[in-house]
Amino acid sequence: MKTEKIEIFDTTLRDGEQVPGCKLDKNQKLYIAQKLDELGVDVIEAGFPISSPGDFDAVQAISKIVKKAKVCALTRANTKDIDSAAQALQYAQKPRIHTGIGTSESHIKYKFNTSQEDILNRAAEAVHYAKKYVEDVEFYAEDAGRTDNAYLAKVCEAVIQAGATVINIPDTTGYCLPADYGAKIKYLKENVKDIDNVTLSCHCHNDLGMATANSIAGIINGARQIECTINGIGERAGNTALEEVVMILKQHEKLGFYTDINSVMLNEMSQLTSTTMGMLVQPNKAIVGSNAFAHSSGIHQDGVIKRRDTYEIIDPRDVGINESAIILTARSGRSALAYRFKNIGYDVTKKELDVLYDYFLKVADVKKEVTEKDLFAIMHTFSQNHLINRTA
Amino acid sequence: MKTEKIEIFDTTLRDGEQVPGCKLDKNQKLYIAQKLDELGVDVIEAGFPISSPGDFDAVQAISKIVKKAKVCALTRANTKDIDSAAQALQYAQKPRIHTGIGTSESHIKYKFNTSQEDILNRAAEAVHYAKKYVEDVEFYAEDAGRTDNAYLAKVCEAVIQAGATVINIPDTTGYCLPADYGAKIKYLKENVKDIDNVTLSCHCHNDLGMATANSIAGIINGARQIECTINGIGERAGNTALEEVVMILKQHEKLGFYTDINSVMLNEMSQLTSTTMGMLVQPNKAIVGSNAFAHSSGIHQDGVIKRRDTYEIIDPRDVGINESAIILTARSGRSALAYRFKNIGYDVTKKELDVLYDYFLKVADVKKEVTEKDLFAIMHTFSQNHLINRTA
Repeated sequence: MKTEKIEIFDTTLRDGEQVPGCKLDKNQKLYIAQKLDELGVDVIEAGFPISSPGDFDAVQAISKIVKKAKVCALTRANTKDIDSAAQALQYAQKPRIHTGIGTSESHIKYKFNTSQEDILNRAAEAVHYAKKYVEDVEFYAEDAGRTDNAYLAKVCEAVIQAGATVINIPDTTGYCLPADYGAKIKYLKENVKDIDNVTLSCHCHNDLGMATANSIAGIINGARQIECTINGIGERAGNTALEEVVMILKQHEKLGFYTDINSVMLNEMSQLTSTTMGMLVQPNKAIVGSNAFAHSSGIHQDGVIKRRDTYEIIDPRDVGINESAIILTARSGRSALAYRFKNIGYDVTKKELDVLYDYFLKVADVKKEVTEKDLFAIMHTFSQNHLINRTA
Repeated sequence: MKTEKIEIFDTTLRDGEQVPGCKLDKNQKLYIAQKLDELGVDVIEAGFPISSPGDFDAVQAISKIVKKAKVCALTRANTKDIDSAAQALQYAQKPRIHTGIGTSESHIKYKFNTSQEDILNRAAEAVHYAKKYVEDVEFYAEDAGRTDNAYLAKVCEAVIQAGATVINIPDTTGYCLPADYGAKIKYLKENVKDIDNVTLSCHCHNDLGMATANSIAGIINGARQIECTINGIGERAGNTALEEVVMILKQHEKLGFYTDINSVMLNEMSQLTSTTMGMLVQPNKAIVGSNAFAHSSGIHQDGVIKRRDTYEIIDPRDVGINESAIILTARSGRSALAYRFKNIGYDVTKKELDVLYDYFLKVADVKKEVTEKDLFAIMHTFSQNHLINRTA
């Protein structure tokens, strides 16, 4: 069976950090960059040097300390931006310049007020100019998700000729359906001359909740790099979540892909990013939410206690979490209650359990969660009422 | 162009409420049920009556007050559960019993320790029994996502014969890829006798971040009901988010579907659910996160100020939000700064803006966000240094 590597391009420090409230200081950025390098990402997009002196400094500092990953800096398609990026990247062992321009009708007409031909020329010139400085030049066709495929193919051909090594096909507004995004990648693979000389990259936004599915559709259809962020942070509804695409490729072996991500670091990376940036992760966030491996309904708990994989497809230890939680609420059943009593030292009989379960439901109907302390109290009342002297 | 209605089955009060920390009291449940009815959902799954006396009461109380939507109660495939559900639903104007059983190998072997044939009989018997009480009986084939399609088809045929009106195909563990989930629905549409007499329903979990995309794939392939929750809350990584599927069907008219949801209530419903249940919504949550319509990077702000749809596909007013936010950070450009100055009464010239932008960057490089108060301070310093007497 084929197993092909998918490159993970992390943009937590660029597309993630530009979000309201997420700004980091230089030391925080350096620490996260170092941890991303340890995590095993292939590319770290470190910032947008021309945007501010602070950002320039951070990209430069990150370039000096990153050991394994490529370090990438964002630019628009102009020489000033590219000069600044090249300077910020001068100490990087594997520098990449990421330049590009909007290619959709909306961007060409309303943002740039120009023609398709002009955009095509500016795209090729920017790539050509960036090649003066570095070998590895990635081009982004902004709003590619809404760009006509035939024109997009022409842009791709022009930037390949100019020396691009990677072409990023962003669904900038998060509009695409997975089938459409996949078809776009397929079209480019089939219609662009020399397309196999470059890596196609998926950069999806989550405005309609489909960034992850779109990225996977892109990979299935020929892309080989995913641009993503820890916890899916990013402009508006955010970017593709790194932890989700990594675990999908890991769980769905039949797809025939792998990444170099050390998945047991995912939970730690999630918490680091969340606390440093002050961006909360909701409890029901896939893979890294605090409830992602918590079971509370009786039906589910019973299943998980009997055998984990009846309700869980990922072993929590694979993402750095010690074990699935069996939470007691009014929806929990007898087997969960017995399991939790056992965990605190009480091995109850079936008959005892019937009585204890009624006690438990009285507490559970007025509380959100029945805690260990409550269990001791329930056992205490039970023992007194039934004159049993139980010891844990 | 065909436009077919998709039924929205809300399970915020059942699959959502059973989550650690989400327990509601009866009055809270009644209020949410009433708002869901106003929102325009087709079905409200109100609870799991046999699971606790509190849940039974809530289903009964909700049945009495809901005016438009069908009220649904969950059961396992046994007479005791079904009796309880029927009793709890007795005052509902449009009652639905939702019964079912696990059909995957993992569930049959490890949870029930029985045979495929036995499960098939229990499924049909449960539906048959529920029909004693109500006309509208929905059957769920638990873990259908991992159930062999040929066997699943047999189960569907058996429950159709027994009188089921809706068949729910849950991806209980959140394992499916959109193409696989879509293919499953297609297989059932093509291979199950009398399948057109029932509504197929998608019930997807978000363990790999693809619940929304899976539900849409189901609809494209023939399902006509989506089971979902407000904010995508639910067991583990949660369920399909109601707001996401509703807005996808609304934005992608070419798919040819509509729902009866009044989308301008979505933001209000999200906040109501989040505050009542104490379940935070992350800022980068699609549609309803606090950043979903916030722009902070210079490139994006410039585009949005020129024309909203360069970066936004949804008009925020369509989901009940007044307008897109232009947030000032170190990544913001001159046009955003000028826009925000204009909002507080300063119409700055291009020359003034160049100087002001340098002042602004100094502040922005040390602050997460530059506020209105900061803008007044910047303008004050600028006016003093340049001996200009500006008034707002």
